Amino acid sequence: MKIILDAMGGDNAPREIVRGASEAAAAYKDAEIVLVGDAKKINETAEENRIDMSRLTIIHTEVAITMDDPAISCVRGKPDSSMAIGLKLVRDGADAFVSAGSTAALHAGSTLIVRKLPGVARSAIATILPFPRPLLLMDSGANPVVQPEYLAQWAVMGSVYMKKLMDVESPEVGLLSNGTEEHKGTAVGVDAYRMLSESSLNFAGNIESREIPFGACDVLVTDGFTGNVVLKLVEGMGKFMFAALKQMYTKNAATKMSFLVMKDQLKAMKKAFDASEYGGAPFLGLNKPVIKAHGNSDAAAIKNAVRQAIKYAESGVTAEIAEGVKAFAPSGGRPYEEANKDE
Amino acid sequence: MKIILDAMGGDNAPREIVRGASEAAAAYKDAEIVLVGDAKKINETAEENRIDMSRLTIIHTEVAITMDDPAISCVRGKPDSSMAIGLKLVRDGADAFVSAGSTAALHAGSTLIVRKLPGVARSAIATILPFPRPLLLMDSGANPVVQPEYLAQWAVMGSVYMKKLMDVESPEVGLLSNGTEEHKGTAVGVDAYRMLSESSLNFAGNIESREIPFGACDVLVTDGFTGNVVLKLVEGMGKFMFAALKQMYTKNAATKMSFLVMKDQLKAMKKAFDASEYGGAPFLGLNKPVIKAHGNSDAAAIKNAVRQAIKYAESGVTAEIAEGVKAFAPSGGRPYEEANKDE
Repeated sequence: MKIILDAMGGDNAPREIVRGASEAAAAYKDAEIVLVGDAKKINETAEENRIDMSRLTIIHTEVAITMDDPAISCVRGKPDSSMAIGLKLVRDGADAFVSAGSTAALHAGSTLIVRKLPGVARSAIATILPFPRPLLLMDSGANPVVQPEYLAQWAVMGSVYMKKLMDVESPEVGLLSNGTEEHKGTAVGVDAYRMLSESSLNFAGNIESREIPFGACDVLVTDGFTGNVVLKLVEGMGKFMFAALKQMYTKNAATKMSFLVMKDQLKAMKKAFDASEYGGAPFLGLNKPVIKAHGNSDAAAIKNAVRQAIKYAESGVTAEIAEGVKAFAPSGGRPYEEANKDE
Repeated sequence: MKIILDAMGGDNAPREIVRGASEAAAAYKDAEIVLVGDAKKINETAEENRIDMSRLTIIHTEVAITMDDPAISCVRGKPDSSMAIGLKLVRDGADAFVSAGSTAALHAGSTLIVRKLPGVARSAIATILPFPRPLLLMDSGANPVVQPEYLAQWAVMGSVYMKKLMDVESPEVGLLSNGTEEHKGTAVGVDAYRMLSESSLNFAGNIESREIPFGACDVLVTDGFTGNVVLKLVEGMGKFMFAALKQMYTKNAATKMSFLVMKDQLKAMKKAFDASEYGGAPFLGLNKPVIKAHGNSDAAAIKNAVRQAIKYAESGVTAEIAEGVKAFAPSGGRPYEEANKDE
C-alpha cells in the first residue's frame, strides 16, 4: 500500500503535512507514505519541529501549485508541480493521492491524469457533513452545471462509498430540491428524479435543505454550485452560532461561571461540526482514490485523510463504482465522451 | 389606506389571521383592514376567541386555495377564492395584499392579476434573513431558473426596498456564488456579474454563502432554486443548533441551573432568528405591494405583515423600482415580454 502526499498544498504546508505524514506512518505501519515536494523545505521544517522522518520517502520538486494558478496547471504550466507528480505516481501504480491544495487544480488534474472510470460522465467532490447522521454531499463544488445522468451516477457512487467506508447498509439517496413534490426544481432535477425513481437505489425523493441537519438521507446529490453553497453555509452558520454563544457566555461573571459547567459539552458539540474528523473529501468516479484535504488542514486532519485513503484503496469502492455506473452510462461502461460521440 | 388580508391562507387560518387583523386595525387606525374569506367561519372564530371585529370589514367567499392546488388557481380553477378576490381588489384600487397561503399560487396570481411593472422581467420573493446585519435574499423561491437580467433587476428592486423600508443608505448588493473571483459560478452568474459591475448600484461582487451570517451585504441576489435552499438551510441550521443546546442544558442538575443564568440571552438569540419580526416577504416588481406571510404565521406575524404592507404602500418603493429597472429593461421600461417579442 503506497500513499502519495502533496507536501506543498494547503495553508499550513509543508509543516502540518509533514507532521501528519509522520504521524500516519507511525500509526499505519503497513503503508508506505511518500511526500512530494521541496526536499530542502521539507527537511528544514522536519528539523525545526523535530518531526520523525525515518518512515517517510521524499520525491523532490521545487514547483508548487498555488491558489492563484489556473485549474489546468497540472497538465499545462506546472507539470512538474508536487500535485502533478503525485497524480502521475498514482496513475502509474501508487494506491492513493492526498492533497490540501487548490480544489480546482486537483479536480482538473485528477480527471486528466488519473482519469475517470469508463462510463463516468463527471467525477464529483463528495463531502461528509458531520451531523448526527453523517450526510455525504455531492457534488460539493467541482461541477457547477450538470446533466441529469451526472446526478444519477453520483447517487450510485455516493451509495457505494457510504456502504463500504461508512458502514451504512442500504444508503438512502436524496435529491436536493426546493420542495418535496416530484415536479419541483429545475428541468435537470425533474429528469434526475425520474432516473433515480426507476433505479435500484434506495431513493428517498426530493429533500429540502431545512432537513439536512436532521438526518434526511445518507447521500444528497445536487449540482456543484448549489452543493458548494450548502457546504459553506453549514460551515458559516456553525461559526456564527458558536460566536454568538461565546459572546453570551463572556457577558458577566454569572455567565462565565455557567460556561464552566457547559464547557465540555460545548466542545463536544463543536467537534461534531468538524468535518476533518472524517478525513478529506474524495473525488468519486476516478480510476484511483484522490482525496482533497481541507485547505487549512492540520497534522491531525492530514493523518485522518491518510487513514481514509488507505481504507478507500483497500475497500473495493472503485471497482464497485465502475460496476454501478454502467446502469446510467450511455453505452454500458464505455468511456462517457466516446460513447456520446456515437450519438 | 386600504389593506386586504387573505383570511383563509396559512396553517393557522382563519383564527390567527383574524386576530392579527384585529390587532393591526387597533394599532394602525388610519388604515382600513379588509378580510376576504368565509364570513361564517371568520365570525365564528372571532366569537370563540373574543376577537374585536369592530374595525374590520369582511368580503365573503367560501372558496379557498389549498397547498395542493396548482399555482395557476387564482385565474384558472378558483377565480372566486379569497386569494384571487384579494388580488383583484388590489388591482382595482386597494393599496396592498397580505396572504399566508400557497407561495406558488400567490406568485402566479399576483403576476397575472396585479401584474408586473413595465420593464420588469420577473417578480421575485424578497426575504429578510434576520442576522445582526439583516440581509434581503432574492429570489427566495419563485423563479428556479433565471436570466442575467432578472438578477440585475432584482438587485435594483432589493436596493430600493432596503433603502426605503430598512433605512440602509446605500445598500450593498452581492451576487451569491461558489467563489469570490468574477469568473466563478454559472454562465448566467458571470453575465450578471458584468451587468452589476457596470451599473450604478453599490456592487460588492460575488459572495460565498459562508459569509451570509456575518453581514456580507444588504441585498443578495440569486436564482430562486439556490435562494430557496439558502432560506431553508438557515432555518434548519437555527433549529438544529437550538435543539442541540436544549439537549445539553437538560442533561443534569448543574446544566439545568446553568440554563437559568442563560435563559434570557438564549431567548434573545432565538428571537434574532425569527424572520417574522420583519413581517412577511414582499413580491418585488409588481404594480402594487403583495406580501407573503409565513405559512405558520401567528397573529403577531400577521400584524407585522400589515404594518409592513402599510409602510410599503406609503414608501414610494413601487415608483422608484419602476424607474430603476429601466436600466436593465430590454427597451426602456416597456413591458418585458412585449419588448422581447420585437427582437
